[in-house]
Order: sequence, then structure tokens, then C-alpha cells
Amino acid sequence: MELGRRGVLRGIGAGVVASSLPSCALADALQSGRKLGYAVVGLGSYAVNQLLPRIRECDYAKLTALVSGTPAKLEKYGAEYGIPKTHRYDYAGYDRIRDNPDIDLVYVVLPNSMHAEYSIRASKAGKHVLCEKPMANTAAEAEAMIAAARAANRRLMIGYRSHFEPHNLYVIDQIRKGAIGRPTLITSEHGFYAKPGQWRLDRPMSGGGSLMDIGIYSLNAARYLSGEEPVLVQAMESTDRSDPRFATVEDRIDFQLKFPSGAIANCVSSYSSNHNAFRATGTKGWIGMEPATVYDGHSIFVRIDGKTGPVELPKATKSQWAAQMDELAKAAIEGREPRASGAEGLRDMRLIEAIYASAREGRAIRMTS
Amino acid sequence: MELGRRGVLRGIGAGVVASSLPSCALADALQSGRKLGYAVVGLGSYAVNQLLPRIRECDYAKLTALVSGTPAKLEKYGAEYGIPKTHRYDYAGYDRIRDNPDIDLVYVVLPNSMHAEYSIRASKAGKHVLCEKPMANTAAEAEAMIAAARAANRRLMIGYRSHFEPHNLYVIDQIRKGAIGRPTLITSEHGFYAKPGQWRLDRPMSGGGSLMDIGIYSLNAARYLSGEEPVLVQAMESTDRSDPRFATVEDRIDFQLKFPSGAIANCVSSYSSNHNAFRATGTKGWIGMEPATVYDGHSIFVRIDGKTGPVELPKATKSQWAAQMDELAKAAIEGREPRASGAEGLRDMRLIEAIYASAREGRAIRMTS
Repeated sequence: MELGRRGVLRGIGAGVVASSLPSCALADALQSGRKLGYAVVGLGSYAVNQLLPRIRECDYAKLTALVSGTPAKLEKYGAEYGIPKTHRYDYAGYDRIRDNPDIDLVYVVLPNSMHAEYSIRASKAGKHVLCEKPMANTAAEAEAMIAAARAANRRLMIGYRSHFEPHNLYVIDQIRKGAIGRPTLITSEHGFYAKPGQWRLDRPMSGGGSLMDIGIYSLNAARYLSGEEPVLVQAMESTDRSDPRFATVEDRIDFQLKFPSGAIANCVSSYSSNHNAFRATGTKGWIGMEPATVYDGHSIFVRIDGKTGPVELPKATKSQWAAQMDELAKAAIEGREPRASGAEGLRDMRLIEAIYASAREGRAIRMTS
Repeated sequence: MELGRRGVLRGIGAGVVASSLPSCALADALQSGRKLGYAVVGLGSYAVNQLLPRIRECDYAKLTALVSGTPAKLEKYGAEYGIPKTHRYDYAGYDRIRDNPDIDLVYVVLPNSMHAEYSIRASKAGKHVLCEKPMANTAAEAEAMIAAARAANRRLMIGYRSHFEPHNLYVIDQIRKGAIGRPTLITSEHGFYAKPGQWRLDRPMSGGGSLMDIGIYSLNAARYLSGEEPVLVQAMESTDRSDPRFATVEDRIDFQLKFPSGAIANCVSSYSSNHNAFRATGTKGWIGMEPATVYDGHSIFVRIDGKTGPVELPKATKSQWAAQMDELAKAAIEGREPRASGAEGLRDMRLIEAIYASAREGRAIRMTS
């Protein structure tokens, strides 16, 4: 394993594998013991089960505030994490975070339709923003979020946790080093059985179906595995509209991407079957993971020189969530763009719109940069 | 394993898993010891390494004649397999097989561009025909082959050996029995690195590139795994035309198929990287093989109820080639259509033409039945 070596990666990968040497600004921050404060906005299951417990692992950030529309949640998690009543906000009082110097960073974990509004309001309040993916319901909203962060001179980052997950980083690094030769095919498959009655099945809240929720993992992985930006997009949708879950959003939308090198990606996005895998095949062999982008239990397989075998990595010292949340804090301290910035989220949003257009119109869509 | 039970399979599968009880006509044939005679046309590496040695395993067929344009090959393999000079033909003398009562069956193993001509001439000579896949260079040629066999009241079969391979049959059977629930996604991936200087890279001989040669396995498997016929076809080609291998034929052409049930297939066809795998994912789990359609060493994996594991089958008593070659003999004896008939080959040819059209025109092609 040679993660973290400077200069090894190109393109998307360049931002994904970071240097292991802290800058002077970071060294100072560590020495002073001062951590930046996160307000977590939206206390759904992802926030309370995955994020809140992991902020404690951060070297540069701590939890300082909670935002929720449910008083009982504010009470419960406020007590559990020692957040005083002065640092608990409802949505009506959200803009008052501006006046709270203990809040440096805002993590937006709301339904997709609220991402743009609550990210922009946080930027206007002078805070750095980490927003869950998909970045917004539309590319236009994503552009507005980037503009708001820029106008406020604050950082904007999108919640691509796999960019901070060691197995994913290892696979990217192997591909960039040429372990599989020139990549020719990426397969990237994500899906799960969507249970009825969730906001993700309500288009005004979600902006779309499986592609917005889980297919975006296939899309983003195809980009970080190839290290390239697609130039051609083609998609095929399959949705049983008589299924009440799919009254307003798509079930399955599988798509193909073509990259400048000539590599093609065959991608899967599904709300009716379980998929969590990717593989990059090149002229010399392949490397892949199954499961690939899960919370835990990642599994890497490689085939080189006609032999297939697993790769075992040492146990990570920090979870993907802590590494992700630390990244925004570090970018804020160092005054630089974070990995998985707003620009990264916007690229996916433009591709998502092209995928939908291709399936709707039955034609290949050429991406213009 | 419950292969061979009547009535279990539908659609394509109905023909793939055959009854294990021989008919009266077959029982008579076995009892009399009389086997039908094969002429093998074209003595390239597939014929001499895979087919000739396996005809000896057949219960209903034997090798009785050889056809080749190379006298040294006729001499070598004629001697090796005890084929008298009277039963060795060059292409100029090919039509004289009509007068040889020891030839009942003709196996055409020539370059694709010669399939139609040599199959039709065999039909006109009153012989049953087994022709390698792809059936022909075009769907129009395939239709002419079917018409010629019908006019001669003789059988026509296409060399889809995987229809006779026990692991493939097991997987089909499991899917039809509902082991994975309703199939929602098929991935089917075939490719290899094409070496320069072969007839398969010369369009007039091959009719096309990877799709005609190896991608047809992905296409055919997607159909037999789903048990359905595609209604929508979409494809993306990627060929480095500066590579002298690809002056006239495509390298990579990956494609998507949509089936009437709503299932989608993501398929791979490549001359620049190695692929040999398929998987059917359904609402309850998945079953797949890697490698899937090789000569030997097939490997099945299943994931049901959150557990993944291999499936071991008992060693087959007869090779896929012998089972295939016996099938045409049995169909001839019983006076019925063989499995993997000309109609099956024609379906693939029509889909191949749609795949090429989709990639060329950048649009989805709807199949009309």
C-alpha cells in the first residue's frame, strides 16, 4: 500500500488520495487543541447513526450544534452529545447560526430538495458547508450553491464518503499506478430494495428515484475509477408504474458512459434489487470490490496475470465519516478547496440530468464541458 | 440439481434443458448401433482441437468425412481419424457430398462470411446442418439459410455450445425455478485480447468485430438467462481506429437490452480486455458464473438470503461439444427441430444488426417481432 504519495494520481484521483503530511496551519491547529465546530442539520437516521457518533473521531472538528424540526430529537441528541439549549436550532431559527461563533461548519443532512436552500443559507451565515449527495435536485441549484459559497468566501464540500474510504482509495491508487494496464471497462453497480413510505420516493423531496439516491454511487465511482470525465452518456430506464412506490420516481435506470480514453462504463442504478460492486478491467487484468461502497466490510479482488485473489488491507485508524468531516475542517483551516468540492457534486448533477434526458429521449447525450 | 425435468422451463429455456428420456426413435437408433455421419467443413483450430476429438463421445453421431482447402490437413486428420480418401473433400468438390450416403450431418466451421454459402449448399445436398455462430454475416443471409433447410426438409442448428453445458443449464434452471425471485438485471461480459493477423479482424470474412465473435456470447446468454426476447436495444462503441487490428472491425461495443418483464441486461463485448462472466440478479438474490462460457473450469456463485457461496456440480459425463453434436443427430432421427435452431441464430443476428445500428446512430432501437 502506498496511499498518500504526492503526484501519483491524476484527474479525479488527484484530489482523492491526499498527502499524509499536515501543513503548518494544521500542525498549529492540532497543537492549540482548538477544533472547528459542526452544526448538523437534520437528525434523520444517517445523521444520528453514522455522523454524530463519528465526529468524536475527528482531529480537527467537534460537534457544537444541532438543527432539527423535531423538538424531541433536539432534546434527546442534545443531551446525549452535551449540546446546550443555546446551540439547538429549529428551522425557523436556523439563520441565527450566523451569530454563534462556536459553529464554523454546517453539515446539511436533509432531504435532497432542501440541500440548496439550507446550504446557501449556511454560506450566507458565513459558515463552511458539507452537504449530502446528491448535491441538489438540479444542476442549476448546484451552481447557485457554489456561487453562494464563493460569494461568502467559504468552503463547500459534498458528502462523497467513499472518497475517504481506504479500500476505495487503494483501488483508485492501483489503477492509477497501472496495475491493470489501460482501463477499458468499468462496471459499477448499486441498488437496493426501496421500502414504501420514504421521502426518497417522493419526487418533490428527492428530485428523482434510484439514480439520485444510490445510482449516484455508480456514477461517481465510474468517474473516480476511470479518473476521467464522461463525454457520452446513454441510459435505459425500467420502472413498473403500477407499483405505488414508483408513482413519481424511477425504479431502475442503467446507463453507459464513454470516457475520452475510449474506456466505457456500464452502470447500474436500482430500487428493486441489491447491488453493491464495481470493477475496473484493463488491458492487463482487473481490480474490483464487492461490496464496494458500504459502511463496513469492503472486499477487494484483483486478477492479474491470470490469477484471481483477494486483497487484505490493514484496519483503518479512522472511519470514512470522520475522515470526510475532518477534510472540510482542514480545508477551512488551510484556506483551500476541499476534496469532493461543490464542483465535484455539480459534475455528477450535470451527468444525472444527461442520464435522465437520454432515457427519456432514447438517444445518446454528448457532454459539453 | 433437477436438470432435465419436463415443463420446468419457459421461453428460451424450454429448449435448453431437454428431457432425459430417449424417444422410441432414439432407443431404436441406440439399439441398432447405427450412428449418423458428420462431415466437418473447415479444419481450423476450433475444428481440430475441440470438435474432432469429441465426436467420438457422441451416442448418435460419428465422424465420416472431412472438408478442407488444405490437402495437408485432409491427409493429416484423415489419417488420424480413419477417414478414407473417398470421404475427403476440397471446396471445389464440396457439392459431391450429396452422393455420399455416409454423410448425414454437416458441421460448418468456416469463417463467418462462408457460413451461409456452405450451409445452404449442404442443405441442397440433402444434409442436416450444424453451423458455427454467428450464423452468418447478416440477418438476410440467416433467413436464406433457414429457407434452404426448410425447402430441403432438413434440420438446421447453430453452434451455441453453452446451451449444452451443464453449469449454464443449471443456472438457467435455477433462475426459471425462481431461486433469485423476479430477474431484474443481467450482466453478461465477454471479451479477449484479439491478436493481429486473424480472419476475425477482416470485415469481409468476419462481418464485424468483437460483437460477431465474442460479444455474441454476452447477447445469447442475456437471452437465455432472462428467458425473454429484448424489446429495446442500445449500444456504445469504442474503437481505436489507429490500432491496425481495428482498421475494418470494431474493438469494444457494449450494449443494453430491455426485456418485456422490465429486466435490463448490461452487456460487454471487447477485443481489448478479457471478460468471461455473467450474473442474473433478481428480487431475492443473484446467481452467476465466472468464468461462464469457457471450454472448461466453469464456476458458479450464488447469493441468496444475504449469503454468497459457490455451487459445485458433479463432473459431466459428456462434453458440451459432444452433447451439441449429438443434438443435431437426435433431432434428425426424431424428425424435430433441434435446440439452438436456425431461428435462434436469426434472433441473435437481428439483435446484432440493431446493436450496430444503435451505436452508429446514437439512439435506442425498438425491436419489432
